[in-house]
Amino acid sequence: MKKNDTNKKAIALHKKLAGKISIQGTYKVTDRAGLSLIYTPGVAAVSSLLSTPSTSSGQAKLARDYTIKGKTVAVISDGSAVLGLGNIGPYGALPVMEGKCALFKTFANVDAFPLVLDTQDPDKIIEAVMAIAPVFGGINLEDIAAPKCFYIEEELKKRLDIPVMHDDQHGTAIVILAALLNAAKVVKKNLKKLKVVISGAGAAGTASANLLLKAGIKDVILLDRKGIIDRTRTEPHKKSLAKRTNPRRVRGGLQEALRGADVLLGVSGPGLATAEDIKLMAKKAIVFAMANPTPEITPDEAARGGAYVIGTGRSDYPNQINNSLAFPGIFRGVLDHRVRQITDEMKIKAAKNLAALVKHPTAKRVVPGPFDQGVSQAVARAMKGS
Amino acid sequence: MKKNDTNKKAIALHKKLAGKISIQGTYKVTDRAGLSLIYTPGVAAVSSLLSTPSTSSGQAKLARDYTIKGKTVAVISDGSAVLGLGNIGPYGALPVMEGKCALFKTFANVDAFPLVLDTQDPDKIIEAVMAIAPVFGGINLEDIAAPKCFYIEEELKKRLDIPVMHDDQHGTAIVILAALLNAAKVVKKNLKKLKVVISGAGAAGTASANLLLKAGIKDVILLDRKGIIDRTRTEPHKKSLAKRTNPRRVRGGLQEALRGADVLLGVSGPGLATAEDIKLMAKKAIVFAMANPTPEITPDEAARGGAYVIGTGRSDYPNQINNSLAFPGIFRGVLDHRVRQITDEMKIKAAKNLAALVKHPTAKRVVPGPFDQGVSQAVARAMKGS
Repeated sequence: MKKNDTNKKAIALHKKLAGKISIQGTYKVTDRAGLSLIYTPGVAAVSSLLSTPSTSSGQAKLARDYTIKGKTVAVISDGSAVLGLGNIGPYGALPVMEGKCALFKTFANVDAFPLVLDTQDPDKIIEAVMAIAPVFGGINLEDIAAPKCFYIEEELKKRLDIPVMHDDQHGTAIVILAALLNAAKVVKKNLKKLKVVISGAGAAGTASANLLLKAGIKDVILLDRKGIIDRTRTEPHKKSLAKRTNPRRVRGGLQEALRGADVLLGVSGPGLATAEDIKLMAKKAIVFAMANPTPEITPDEAARGGAYVIGTGRSDYPNQINNSLAFPGIFRGVLDHRVRQITDEMKIKAAKNLAALVKHPTAKRVVPGPFDQGVSQAVARAMKGS
Repeated sequence: MKKNDTNKKAIALHKKLAGKISIQGTYKVTDRAGLSLIYTPGVAAVSSLLSTPSTSSGQAKLARDYTIKGKTVAVISDGSAVLGLGNIGPYGALPVMEGKCALFKTFANVDAFPLVLDTQDPDKIIEAVMAIAPVFGGINLEDIAAPKCFYIEEELKKRLDIPVMHDDQHGTAIVILAALLNAAKVVKKNLKKLKVVISGAGAAGTASANLLLKAGIKDVILLDRKGIIDRTRTEPHKKSLAKRTNPRRVRGGLQEALRGADVLLGVSGPGLATAEDIKLMAKKAIVFAMANPTPEITPDEAARGGAYVIGTGRSDYPNQINNSLAFPGIFRGVLDHRVRQITDEMKIKAAKNLAALVKHPTAKRVVPGPFDQGVSQAVARAMKGS
């Protein structure tokens, strides 16, 4: 389908649907007896019961059994970094969040509700999420700009007793690691010895670098708009990244970084690289250009540069390295196992489980498709505390 | 059904349901083409479109057509005054809010989502509601204690461009006025000449007094725990009420207020009055004892005292004077007509429309039943701006 066709169809479909999710009752109320049970007076007995424990956490635990809390996730955005579109605010963000909620249901039977916020102030975002948290069994942060996304996620993880995950960070990192595990097999290279270049040091780039390092990959170079992140950087976030990455102390821009690299991960935006740039990479290069809706380099261009395994974030090319493979199963798992924190170990296990679903990886298939059997279950299984 | 039976059944049903609402996708995604439309890349076109208008209100208007905003209401509580149970916090409140959301769907096909807040600070409640407002076409405040509920509602009405209604106030007031319109016919008294006593000067009592005055009733006496509200009161909220009510300058307690009164409205709590108290009232007295789950006086006791028209807030007695007759239609109406503010005129019209659904009012039937045909439509019709 051509891009303009997709856009026109998407706009027409959204107008027709007027909302990609709906709310349904789970109990058909048809008479006063039913009303007495789900509303007054019967509901008062349930309210009394839930308020009986003396601690808030005791009440929260009971609420998981008697209310939507046990099955419902909030998808929260301030619209400050929506897809590749940038800071378009809460209304622009809402269709994406609704789409995520629809996918939560489709792929993992998770009830998810979108909340787009009329504030972009980190502390006010934290306050708002803290305020509405009692209803939910988990918080999926989405499309919040770096570096504030790191602070917001960390604070909420500390303060809330339900799992909080910024999906642009960790969902993306898990799927990238899964894809790399299989791509390394396809090109017959040792995962831990891969030279990896990441374009983009925002949410996805930072979390991916962290998870790849955690998984044992040693040589990771990050780039932002200013070029390679090296030890001359002074911004706190970049300084911290420089300490953990770029062990060969490479300096310069994309071309310097790509020379001899095995992997290019694009999590920045369109117009990053040309076929000529890809030619600088090692043989059997792996290129995942994941910006949405427009990738950093088109698959055709990457192929012309000699890339051997090519992936994008889009559903209309092969190897869709998209967090839709991860987030539904992650929250299915944390709800099922009542997990309080999502750990690095769980994320790595999730990536391995995802990769293992592809029995015979090939250049055109390093990750399962989103509609493949068992995807969300494989990820959910990894969310057990150890 | 006996009270204990109802309670046991309600608790068992809530455990079985584990949430009285669920979230469903409105579009069945079964393949990558579908995914391309409701998620990336297609959704980016919709996000771009919605962020195109230069003003937030322009964006909000578009969002009503393309997202759930046009059909979805938030049901918000801090759990500070839940039913007759008092301040039981957000977890205790959640089953009631879920029940309301289920009824929104059942009675008026309104999508409603419950948000119980982990704060009881008025300004933090306002901040939280402001933050999540972009997703919604209306805000239903619920079970928030007086007098802070007045401040919260007023501020939100001023600051938001979607309708905000504290249902304990206005939903209750509308249904009370509807019931009184018909009860006056049954006892053949002139509505405007009724002597009305309201026990409870909280959310429901205050709003009912205001609406009855607005509808032309002149003689309204309010009572709180300290007795009749008269001009000796100094608290700002009570002082303001005293200015508008109690024209005969009656002083004392319930018995002084009831002497010769035509109507007793109970919106306070159980154990208010006995048959002996009711005997002080005028002939053909009207007694609506609406505390939930336990009324101010049982219908049997009120009848022993000579009350002629008797109502409660419960679904297991005749004349259920419960805001479930009003709130679904109110929000159906404001969503359909894209109303920004709910005015007193709309409320009075809603009460009249509700009352008119009972073609031949009798002592046992002064309001329609919640399952009667046309209830929410009758209320919704009143929500047109003039």
